Amino acid sequence: MKSHEILSRKKVLEAHAFDVVQVGFRLPDGRERAYDLVDHANAVTLLPVTADGEALLVTQYRIGAEGLMLELPAGVMDPGEQPLESARRELREETGMDSRELVELGGFFMVAGYSNEYMHAYLALDLSEAPLEQDEDEFLELERMPLAELYRRAFAGELTDGKTMVTLMLALPELSRRFPGLEELGRM
Amino acid sequence: MKSHEILSRKKVLEAHAFDVVQVGFRLPDGRERAYDLVDHANAVTLLPVTADGEALLVTQYRIGAEGLMLELPAGVMDPGEQPLESARRELREETGMDSRELVELGGFFMVAGYSNEYMHAYLALDLSEAPLEQDEDEFLELERMPLAELYRRAFAGELTDGKTMVTLMLALPELSRRFPGLEELGRM
Repeated sequence: MKSHEILSRKKVLEAHAFDVVQVGFRLPDGRERAYDLVDHANAVTLLPVTADGEALLVTQYRIGAEGLMLELPAGVMDPGEQPLESARRELREETGMDSRELVELGGFFMVAGYSNEYMHAYLALDLSEAPLEQDEDEFLELERMPLAELYRRAFAGELTDGKTMVTLMLALPELSRRFPGLEELGRM
Repeated sequence: MKSHEILSRKKVLEAHAFDVVQVGFRLPDGRERAYDLVDHANAVTLLPVTADGEALLVTQYRIGAEGLMLELPAGVMDPGEQPLESARRELREETGMDSRELVELGGFFMVAGYSNEYMHAYLALDLSEAPLEQDEDEFLELERMPLAELYRRAFAGELTDGKTMVTLMLALPELSRRFPGLEELGRM
């Protein structure tokens, strides 16, 4: 398929966590259009799992949902960080744990229609205590949940955070190898 | 956990597909902060499946990814539409098919940290031809893929569209009831 050709970029807003850029481009049929793009740093999310099969999650206030959400630990990459470094930092900040086995699960665009944020997902195993101080504006409540309960909730549509759902999907093959029977929760 | 209290909202940008609103609020410890929120319409996404177990997908250019992406049919809800109406309209526009059995899968926030877009997900079964004209700026290529191949790719991390992954996760229990053995693809 013939693609779109980008012709111009103009920053129209500089906000705290992102910019908005107006991107001019040529459609495959030759006409020109402009789209507004949220220019956002890339991010990481992790599924930390203890040796006895418990997942570590956080509950926090989210402005988009105007309420508290149950999610996997996640965060924006700092300038100059590699995804794996960001993942370990976020893990330590949000759960107080470090991981000696971070499994790369892949990555994904959250809302490719209007944001360039790309999310790197990891499974964090072999955990040990190694806390780092949290951002002072973050108010997180840590929660432990058996994997079977977490996947049951996910398949039942009870989790409303997109990146959490994607990461659970990506982690299932590796987890079901370590915790046999987990994939059967995907059967009704 | 004590929540955040919203104190003010100020629109700082009116863009084509969304606004940006600066939201002032009080943190649980009493301090005040402002966050920038992408104020975006809600949306729908569908997994259309034919009687013989093929999924209908679309390939399209996405500005956030600066390239073509393979995704489930999806779109923004029009003002006044109910989610189910939007789902049928998008299905007809993007795939040329209508569904006599739309199964509600639930919903989710794509990026709750900075956008209020909420996505309603559906499984679309019992399909029949009923095309509606597409938006003139949309350039889509329709693709048919056996469900087993689609889920294999999803679990392998080969799909990079967030809403597509979430919807595949939500649809797995219902699909594995109709197409026995599908959930076993979630085993490594």
